[in-house]
Amino acid sequence: MDFGITFKGFVEPQRARNLVRQAEAAGFSHCWFYDSHILWRECYPAIAMCMEHTSKMKFGPCVTNPNSRDWSIAASLFASLALQSEGRFVVGLGRGDSAMRVMGKKPANLARVAEFTQKVKAMVRGEEVTYGESPEPVKLPWSVGYELPMYIGAYGPKALKTAGEVGDGVILQIADPSLVKWFAEQAISAGKDAGRDMSDYQIIASAPAYMGDMKKCRDATRWFPAMVGNHVADIVEKYGAHSGLVPESLTQYIEQRKGYDYSKHGQSDNPYLDFISDEIIDSFSVLGEPDAHIAKIKELEAVGTTQFNIYLDSGEEEHIIADYAEKIIPAFR
Amino acid sequence: MDFGITFKGFVEPQRARNLVRQAEAAGFSHCWFYDSHILWRECYPAIAMCMEHTSKMKFGPCVTNPNSRDWSIAASLFASLALQSEGRFVVGLGRGDSAMRVMGKKPANLARVAEFTQKVKAMVRGEEVTYGESPEPVKLPWSVGYELPMYIGAYGPKALKTAGEVGDGVILQIADPSLVKWFAEQAISAGKDAGRDMSDYQIIASAPAYMGDMKKCRDATRWFPAMVGNHVADIVEKYGAHSGLVPESLTQYIEQRKGYDYSKHGQSDNPYLDFISDEIIDSFSVLGEPDAHIAKIKELEAVGTTQFNIYLDSGEEEHIIADYAEKIIPAFR
Amino acid sequence: MDFGITFKGFVEPQRARNLVRQAEAAGFSHCWFYDSHILWRECYPAIAMCMEHTSKMKFGPCVTNPNSRDWSIAASLFASLALQSEGRFVVGLGRGDSAMRVMGKKPANLARVAEFTQKVKAMVRGEEVTYGESPEPVKLPWSVGYELPMYIGAYGPKALKTAGEVGDGVILQIADPSLVKWFAEQAISAGKDAGRDMSDYQIIASAPAYMGDMKKCRDATRWFPAMVGNHVADIVEKYGAHSGLVPESLTQYIEQRKGYDYSKHGQSDNPYLDFISDEIIDSFSVLGEPDAHIAKIKELEAVGTTQFNIYLDSGEEEHIIADYAEKIIPAFR
Amino acid sequence: MDFGITFKGFVEPQRARNLVRQAEAAGFSHCWFYDSHILWRECYPAIAMCMEHTSKMKFGPCVTNPNSRDWSIAASLFASLALQSEGRFVVGLGRGDSAMRVMGKKPANLARVAEFTQKVKAMVRGEEVTYGESPEPVKLPWSVGYELPMYIGAYGPKALKTAGEVGDGVILQIADPSLVKWFAEQAISAGKDAGRDMSDYQIIASAPAYMGDMKKCRDATRWFPAMVGNHVADIVEKYGAHSGLVPESLTQYIEQRKGYDYSKHGQSDNPYLDFISDEIIDSFSVLGEPDAHIAKIKELEAVGTTQFNIYLDSGEEEHIIADYAEKIIPAFR
Repeated sequence: MDFGITFKGFVEPQRARNLVRQAEAAGFSHCWFYDSHILWRECYPAIAMCMEHTSKMKFGPCVTNPNSRDWSIAASLFASLALQSEGRFVVGLGRGDSAMRVMGKKPANLARVAEFTQKVKAMVRGEEVTYGESPEPVKLPWSVGYELPMYIGAYGPKALKTAGEVGDGVILQIADPSLVKWFAEQAISAGKDAGRDMSDYQIIASAPAYMGDMKKCRDATRWFPAMVGNHVADIVEKYGAHSGLVPESLTQYIEQRKGYDYSKHGQSDNPYLDFISDEIIDSFSVLGEPDAHIAKIKELEAVGTTQFNIYLDSGEEEHIIADYAEKIIPAFR
Repeated sequence: MDFGITFKGFVEPQRARNLVRQAEAAGFSHCWFYDSHILWRECYPAIAMCMEHTSKMKFGPCVTNPNSRDWSIAASLFASLALQSEGRFVVGLGRGDSAMRVMGKKPANLARVAEFTQKVKAMVRGEEVTYGESPEPVKLPWSVGYELPMYIGAYGPKALKTAGEVGDGVILQIADPSLVKWFAEQAISAGKDAGRDMSDYQIIASAPAYMGDMKKCRDATRWFPAMVGNHVADIVEKYGAHSGLVPESLTQYIEQRKGYDYSKHGQSDNPYLDFISDEIIDSFSVLGEPDAHIAKIKELEAVGTTQFNIYLDSGEEEHIIADYAEKIIPAFR
Repeated sequence: MDFGITFKGFVEPQRARNLVRQAEAAGFSHCWFYDSHILWRECYPAIAMCMEHTSKMKFGPCVTNPNSRDWSIAASLFASLALQSEGRFVVGLGRGDSAMRVMGKKPANLARVAEFTQKVKAMVRGEEVTYGESPEPVKLPWSVGYELPMYIGAYGPKALKTAGEVGDGVILQIADPSLVKWFAEQAISAGKDAGRDMSDYQIIASAPAYMGDMKKCRDATRWFPAMVGNHVADIVEKYGAHSGLVPESLTQYIEQRKGYDYSKHGQSDNPYLDFISDEIIDSFSVLGEPDAHIAKIKELEAVGTTQFNIYLDSGEEEHIIADYAEKIIPAFR
Repeated sequence: MDFGITFKGFVEPQRARNLVRQAEAAGFSHCWFYDSHILWRECYPAIAMCMEHTSKMKFGPCVTNPNSRDWSIAASLFASLALQSEGRFVVGLGRGDSAMRVMGKKPANLARVAEFTQKVKAMVRGEEVTYGESPEPVKLPWSVGYELPMYIGAYGPKALKTAGEVGDGVILQIADPSLVKWFAEQAISAGKDAGRDMSDYQIIASAPAYMGDMKKCRDATRWFPAMVGNHVADIVEKYGAHSGLVPESLTQYIEQRKGYDYSKHGQSDNPYLDFISDEIIDSFSVLGEPDAHIAKIKELEAVGTTQFNIYLDSGEEEHIIADYAEKIIPAFR
């Protein structure tokens, strides 16, 4: 089991430098940054900065999208980060949620996500690539042939199919083992149907972790199901609640959902948190005393999860990393 | 007199880290990177990397352009770099030369350069900004109010006028004192006509420097007038050779010019170097023994140059920086 | 009020690098290392290492002694550390406790402590100095004139007198405000008697801090009065229990004291911990919820303490620093 | 062939940090510091500092001696440096020349050099060791069992014998291939006679290197035979000139030698340089154009030299390292 942490761009730079050092020493192998360049700081300068303070940790956006940057810019950026970190750059990719909506733009469709995945990987690899926005084909003459891992964030059946067909893994924003299993199986099945070898396919469960008494844990992580609910709403709208295509446990809580304030995306003072039950909070995150963390992560491991990625947005970052270093990660070594 | 160095993205990362450290210790205050993301590596990850190894040195692209990146992406990127370096980020801006041409695209016109300057500065500062490509106005909620210096690369009369009217300085890719004077006066005059206080306006002369016997110096820097000639050709074409708007000394050598291979932009093996006379090479760069360097930079200072920025593309980077540390920069302290 | 942390040489190097970075960002101004080169690692390489990861934090031994190193070696070492950190090196000095005893040697007497203080400060300053072990006078030709602060660890009346007469401050291994007051007054009074200006004299209270419920706090810090008791025993033996020269509160608990295992100096599994009462533990350290920490440190400040220096030997280092960053230090800014 | 550089403590710290980074990137595997704590800064803080800026380079004194520091202090210092650099610490050892003489003390005899080698290696390894100055045996409880390489600086027959019998290699302050051969054979022969496996025995030739025309090269390195001559004088005095025990080529130039000013040890303005012939200068160092460097180092390699260690005391440090990176070291890969 790999362990990851995810930052928002909000973290003060000196603290970010120190947190990645602490996390690397603690045994975390991945560090992810939200990519939503208006709500938060542009994540790639922060990634480059943090790379200078680590030697083994891998970094990537969680998640970027095909519409924020010209594809040759994205490819050059990704290949440059991989090169200057000696291969420690990976990508999480989605359709573009907050990054697009705050500009009044639409997320990309899944065909575009798939095309971005394949063409940006090819450009990073050094191949000549033609894509829609560039009159001339693009080839990076300085490429060193890096094979960029791209993991696709998905919930809905079609996104999971895309993730399985073209991604190197799937990012699931949830830590409920049965839902992770249900989502992951769809992606892997789609990959196998497409004739791919899925033996090294990555299943990344991303969610908050919080330690201590459950009241405090729930208060600190209530924002997460609210944020995730936004994506669930998209799925339910597209595939139909109670259609059999979306699991009941995922759609239930969305029905009372009243709205979502994008200017407070991912923040704990988002006002639309009331409808979320304790059961949902407990299921979506990893909460409680150390033993409860170990037990839940073991369950995630049992259903095929290859990385548990902690959303470090609930405060107490140094404490959470220290607790994982001392009490949780050693149980997986 | 400030001193700067300019890298291409070609430099191997560990060497780049070491060179900026050597340069900062030597007394160089600025480090610039070419921004042409297909020919070379994306420069901003390298800038973020180098910032981690320095504490006073300022960094920026030399030059970026208004068309490579969405403006909110550019603003978020620039503001993020400024924030994580505690104010050590500046911008050099042009119309977009190689970065656009290799994609089969056109450079931006000067109106767009001016609009980019003003709107990106405003976004970085934290203001709400409306621009063409974004349906909704953009405001970076995390801005700390950084006032981003933007220096505009220019040769032609209209570009110099724009540089004077909206820029914080002008970047002149040449080290001939009389030409620097002629260009700079146009920019400053335009700024004064627009009612601006030009007392802190920056005049940045960018050119190769090379030390030793003149034969070796000329061989190592012949590529520079060739590269610059490309821009001169644009000016001559637009404003007319022998029109009085373009100085004769600048247009003479272009008339024998036969072509230019963009795939070898800025490289010393560019095949179109034959037509360039020794006189032109000596005039455009800073060459010879230490005394000759000091004398020419004093001349540049006398005509108002505020920074001599060395294009470090001729090899012997460590030697040039060491020589400037020991023999040249102390003469200006 | 300044805040410091003290490490044992036991801390794994990568963790030490990260802890000093975290502590500097948290607002700690000093970092101290035990100097007892057989029980723990030699502290000066660790200090030099940590200096490379900080920019404002000051470092020093807490405490060194006049007998472990030739005085010219000590002076060269201290002056070198000051020079390469741009003035961020200070010294805590004692008679030599564990460092001497494990070798079967005696601690230095106070006259030697005083002579070391004055002669090493003079050598660091660049003066020519004659001392007993060197046939020729010693002068460091490369000295930059650094004025090395030397703070003297003391409990007993004579040591406090020495600290006041020749030190730049006194290090008191205790956080009981009334005892700090009683000790500090002796040192300051001796300094005034010697005609010194004591307005900038430093009073450094060094003790563990631990956060949470008192049971856990006491278990984690019970080792500290045991270690300190060793010094107290020296004082009691020399000046006499119930003599009026040693405060009753300090001598009471020593009377039941049965022994001390030097091979476990400063460790929580030292077997001679039973006799120590909760009252003594609570008095000697800073324990409990954040409000209790703030209240006790305010008391220490009121009696003249200029630095509270946390002995970080109780585990949970990252947690303690994070808690001080978030909850304690801001109350003193 | 390994390549090393040797610093004096004179180098300004920021420059030292940059030089070791440049040297590591250039392919130098070792960095040595003079250990003479009064004439120059104490070298171990500088070593610890430089370790933080490198990841593969090994560091050590060239040379330390058995008398400057208590042996348990030396062992703790060395073991600590090895531990915090993950095994990148080695030791060069001599009898104690300038470090002792400036204090009016005598160098150690060879028996003491041998005992220091064996006992300090044992302490670093974690063994319990008894030595003269410590009443109790010493054992470092935190040792990780590091096997410390100790290379012994030698010229005379008895020192070479000691180097062969107890050292992991020999440091020869000279780059004349025939003399290196003559010295090295004595050490290796003594080791074989003592029954040791000498297959991995290190032969380290230490001397200045300088590039360019020979006049400039000689002026810059004339100080070196003068410094070395001091050691040669010791040998000649002890074993007799023209005795057959000391090679004629080494003793010839010493006969005109008039004196030596220890306060200028290792400096190029040492006044006793006149008697040194060009032939001696050329023989003792590595001088001239790149081809001459490659040729001489190949000769050194042919006679068994395992490391060429450049004394970087002639100025132009950045230039020499850059030249070796570009022109010399690649010829040995």
